[in-house]
Amino acid sequence: MTTNSPDIFQSRLNTVAAKMETVLAQILPEPAGPQSQVMDAMSYALLGGGKRLRPFLLIEAARMLGTQTTGTQNQGLWQAAAALECVHVYSLIHDDLPCMDDDNIRRGKPTLHKAYDEALAVLAGDALLTLAFEILSRPSIHTNADIRLKLISELAVNSGTHGMIGGQVIDIYANLSEQNETLITHLQALKTGALIHYSVIAGGRLAGATDDDLANLSIYADALGLAFQIRDDILDVEGDSCIMGKRTNKDAGLGKATFVSIYGLEGAKEKAHKLGVKAKNALKPYGEKADILCAAVDFVLNRQK
Amino acid sequence: MTTNSPDIFQSRLNTVAAKMETVLAQILPEPAGPQSQVMDAMSYALLGGGKRLRPFLLIEAARMLGTQTTGTQNQGLWQAAAALECVHVYSLIHDDLPCMDDDNIRRGKPTLHKAYDEALAVLAGDALLTLAFEILSRPSIHTNADIRLKLISELAVNSGTHGMIGGQVIDIYANLSEQNETLITHLQALKTGALIHYSVIAGGRLAGATDDDLANLSIYADALGLAFQIRDDILDVEGDSCIMGKRTNKDAGLGKATFVSIYGLEGAKEKAHKLGVKAKNALKPYGEKADILCAAVDFVLNRQK
Repeated sequence: MTTNSPDIFQSRLNTVAAKMETVLAQILPEPAGPQSQVMDAMSYALLGGGKRLRPFLLIEAARMLGTQTTGTQNQGLWQAAAALECVHVYSLIHDDLPCMDDDNIRRGKPTLHKAYDEALAVLAGDALLTLAFEILSRPSIHTNADIRLKLISELAVNSGTHGMIGGQVIDIYANLSEQNETLITHLQALKTGALIHYSVIAGGRLAGATDDDLANLSIYADALGLAFQIRDDILDVEGDSCIMGKRTNKDAGLGKATFVSIYGLEGAKEKAHKLGVKAKNALKPYGEKADILCAAVDFVLNRQK
Repeated sequence: MTTNSPDIFQSRLNTVAAKMETVLAQILPEPAGPQSQVMDAMSYALLGGGKRLRPFLLIEAARMLGTQTTGTQNQGLWQAAAALECVHVYSLIHDDLPCMDDDNIRRGKPTLHKAYDEALAVLAGDALLTLAFEILSRPSIHTNADIRLKLISELAVNSGTHGMIGGQVIDIYANLSEQNETLITHLQALKTGALIHYSVIAGGRLAGATDDDLANLSIYADALGLAFQIRDDILDVEGDSCIMGKRTNKDAGLGKATFVSIYGLEGAKEKAHKLGVKAKNALKPYGEKADILCAAVDFVLNRQK
C-alpha cells in the first residue's frame, strides 16, 4: 500500500459520502399529499449525516473488481448503495425508539421520535425498509434480473431474524451480564456484522464476482464487521460523545458484557488489530486494487466516532 | 351465479384459510437461537386467526384465470399469498402499538405488544415485512424472474408511502374531524385499498394475466376495497365487539369523519352496494369462473366482523 493511502482513503470516503447524499435525496419520495409528513421524516433521518460506511463498502468492493463507479452507466450501483443505507437508517430509527434503546441523539441531532414523534418514527422506518426493496427491484439496478433477486434475497436474510433483527433481539433480551464471549460475538455478527457482510457481497455481486471473489470478500467483510463492533465497544468506554454525536458509556452503564469487559481494553484493541490483519490478508489476491478496502480497515480500527 | 354460491363461497374461504394456516406455519422461521423470542412473537401474531381475505383474493384471482391452486406445482401461489399475509399482519402489529392506535385486542386475543412487549412488537413487525420480500424473491414463487420482481415492486409500492403506510399517516395526522369525502376516500384507498388491490393483481400476475385481465381485476379490486372499508365503518357503529374480536366505535368515538358520518348509515350501505355492483360487473367477461370472486363481494358487504 502506498504511504499516502490514508489521505486517498479519506478523500474517497468523502467523495462517496457526497455522492450518496445526492443519490439518497433522489430516491426519497417527494413530500406530497396529506401524508407528506412521513416523507419529511424519512428525509430528516436519511440525509445530512453518517459516515455512509456501508454504501462505501458496496461501491469500493465493486470498484476493486473492476466496475466503473462514475458515469451514468453505473447508476444502479449507487441506487443499490442507497437501498442499503435506507435499511441501515431504518434500523437506527427503530433501535432508538423509547421501547428499545431510548436514545435522544443520533448523528449529532435529535433522534427521529424526538424531532417528530414515535408513530412517525415507526412508520418512517417501515417506509425506508419498504423503499429499499422497491429500489432493488428496479431494472436500473442491474440488467440481470437474477442478480436483482439475489440482492433482494440476501438483503432480506441479512436484515431479518437470522441477521440484524435477530441481533437486536439478542441485545435486548439475552442475559448479557454474563461474560459470554460466544454469545456477544454471535450477537454482533448478526446485529452489525450481517449488514456489513451484505454491503461487501452486494458490491461483489453487482461487479460480477466469481465464487472465489465472493469467498474472499466474505472473509474480509466478516473480519471487518467484528473489528468495527469491537471498536464501537472501545469507543463506548473511551469515546467523546460530542465527537461521536451519540451517547457513550451505554452498554457498560447498563451492566452489559462488551468486548471490552470480556477482553479488557488492551485485549480488545489487540483482538481488533488481529481481525484487521485477517481482513487485509483476504484481499491479497487483488494487489493494489485492494488498497482502498484495506485502508477502510485502518479507518475502522482508528475511528474516533 | 348459482343459488348456492354463498355456501360454496364459505366452504372455499374456509378451505383457503385452513391451507394458509399450514403454509404460514411453514414459511415462518423456526424458533432457534437466543433470538427465538422474535420467532415466537411472529408466530403468535401470524397464526390462528383472521379471515385470510387477502390471500383468498390472490388465490381466487389466479384460479379465475385458469391456474390450478392445488398440487405441488402451485406451491408458489400459496407462498406469495403467505408473503402478502405477512405484510398485512405486520401492519396490524405496528398500527396496534401504543404510539399509534393503542389497541389491546386483535383477532380475539391480546395484541402482540400486550402479549409480549412493545420492542418485540416493533421487531416482529419489521421481521414479517422483511420475510415477505425474501419469500417473493424465491425461485419457487414463479419460474419467471421478471414476474417475481414485479410482485416485489408492486408489493413495496402498495405498502409504502404511496400505499398502506401513507394511508396510516393520513389516518393519524390529517384533520379528519372535517367531513371531507375526498380525503377519507383517499385515505382508505391507501390504507386498506392498496393491499387489497395488490392481492388481486398479484394473483393475476401469477396466473399470466393479460393487460385486459389486469385492468378488469383492478376495477374489481378497487371497488371491493372501498366497499370493504365502508363496511368497516358501518361495523364500527353497528358491530358487536365480541363477534368482531376487536374494539368498536373507535373512529366515531375519536370524532373522526367516517363514511357513516359523511353518508349516514343508510347512505353508506347504499354506497357499498353500488360499489359491489361495480366490482361484479368488472368480472362479467369471465362468466361463471368469476362466481367465487363475486360471492366475495357479497361476503364483504354482509360481513359481521
